[in-house]
Amino acid sequence: MKTLIIALGGNALIRLGEEGTVGQMLDNLRAPIRQIAELSKDYQVVITHGNGPMVGSLLLQQEAALHVVKMPLQILVAETQGQIGFMIESTLDEELMKIGLDEEKLFLTILTYVKVDPEDPAFKNPTKPIGPAYPVRTQLGQVKTTKGWRRVVPSPKPKKIYQWREIKKLMELGSWIVIACGGGGIPVIKEEKRLYGVEAVIDKDLASSKLAEQIGADILLIATDVEKVALNYGKPAQNDLERLSISEAKKYLEEGQFPAGSMGPKIQAVINFLETGGKKAIITSIEKIKEALEGKAGTQIILDK
Amino acid sequence: MKTLIIALGGNALIRLGEEGTVGQMLDNLRAPIRQIAELSKDYQVVITHGNGPMVGSLLLQQEAALHVVKMPLQILVAETQGQIGFMIESTLDEELMKIGLDEEKLFLTILTYVKVDPEDPAFKNPTKPIGPAYPVRTQLGQVKTTKGWRRVVPSPKPKKIYQWREIKKLMELGSWIVIACGGGGIPVIKEEKRLYGVEAVIDKDLASSKLAEQIGADILLIATDVEKVALNYGKPAQNDLERLSISEAKKYLEEGQFPAGSMGPKIQAVINFLETGGKKAIITSIEKIKEALEGKAGTQIILDK
Repeated sequence: MKTLIIALGGNALIRLGEEGTVGQMLDNLRAPIRQIAELSKDYQVVITHGNGPMVGSLLLQQEAALHVVKMPLQILVAETQGQIGFMIESTLDEELMKIGLDEEKLFLTILTYVKVDPEDPAFKNPTKPIGPAYPVRTQLGQVKTTKGWRRVVPSPKPKKIYQWREIKKLMELGSWIVIACGGGGIPVIKEEKRLYGVEAVIDKDLASSKLAEQIGADILLIATDVEKVALNYGKPAQNDLERLSISEAKKYLEEGQFPAGSMGPKIQAVINFLETGGKKAIITSIEKIKEALEGKAGTQIILDK
Repeated sequence: MKTLIIALGGNALIRLGEEGTVGQMLDNLRAPIRQIAELSKDYQVVITHGNGPMVGSLLLQQEAALHVVKMPLQILVAETQGQIGFMIESTLDEELMKIGLDEEKLFLTILTYVKVDPEDPAFKNPTKPIGPAYPVRTQLGQVKTTKGWRRVVPSPKPKKIYQWREIKKLMELGSWIVIACGGGGIPVIKEEKRLYGVEAVIDKDLASSKLAEQIGADILLIATDVEKVALNYGKPAQNDLERLSISEAKKYLEEGQFPAGSMGPKIQAVINFLETGGKKAIITSIEKIKEALEGKAGTQIILDK
């Protein structure tokens, strides 16, 4: 069976306008997870996911509580891996039961930490806004965004997913579904024989692509809130793409067609994946995962002929 | 190799008088995890652990933050499984590197949910204090404790560890170290093909014992803050025990020698384990794990002749 990595965007958990109760998140997970349960008949599946609103909420809670010990960002990322991993697993458990695969399939969440380079330029130039937005500046390290003043943290590149061996081994065993790389993974720096967590966030699509490379996955599917990658997105001349070659993707990326905060890293992730041995890459919406794999939806990103 | 379950008590993370910073927790983990890394040469190890202060801290933060969505207790338990699992794993990673086993061993944290019975009498009689203590009563469902008014939640019995199949499979593979049942596991109720998390906490020693039974573990070692089980604990006539038979254990438990909040569930856990096929059970301190396994420390609980 082919190995398929499905990266779930934030809308798999919280839809626009929702506050993000547990009930809402579990409801939202139903659509993508139902498809994934079905797909597990034909593919070895690894599920990865974001954690933006959840890690923001944990930060907000920490800031509000005066008399508790503050945990650094990497620990909060680990917490969201537990929180979201459990929600995905329990939904998956139910969907596998419904199609009678619950006895056959084994599944688990792999807490994932990811090596980053302390010399990564991102540490000198933090750009990723996280956590709550304030109407005025409340502390150092905040920048003004459209939502208000927010803390920004570095977003270094993932160099190595430490748990790749465990994930590869489970894929080889043949009946496992794995949840990994939550929130892009817990960023750590390695010095000699010590590991140090660092306050940063890793892009979950770039982490998924690195994992795909390390375990030799066949297919990377990035599920987000649009069905297709588009040129001139949101403009009258918007052009949805069914196919996109790597050379076109690079050209459009350079031209600024894909913004840094949204489609940009997804395009970069699929380019990285295809250039390091990946066979098939797809970007589509969380509703169309199965159709897109059948070639009936989404944008298929392909190697140049 | 024999399968060994080591249940780490709260003092593996936070010592008396500490506030529980990440640095303190990682330092405290060093002693037990170093021994466990060594033991992984000779045993298949499953590590389980508590989460009391951490889940309390998450509750306190939630209560302090007015404008965030509140997560139910079972989700906070899942968060602590991520948080503590990562701290245990990164420490284990370092200790395996130091003894040159990092290439050979695979390890991961298994988010664990545990079936409880909705008819469990604990739901009608919540007894487990969690979270912050207040000088006055601040909400319904609080009871007065020696520390102040605290919320109490039910502590139902673990009926089944859902992830037992995954854990057993990994143990069979031979080179895996698994972290599981954090905080006693995430309590869930199953109805038809749906799983519902419930606001409760499961005793981590009872959960470890249930897991031991389900995977057919050989040895259960409970690591806590005293080296030996004692009769008349804290009194002039305190009598530390090197050996304790099941029939004696039951008798002393009935006599009230082992308080419900501390040694009681540990004794019950080892009784359950030995009566369901377990071969060897030990209670000792986190410093003496290795010595106790060699029979040089701790209390060995044994089947009656």
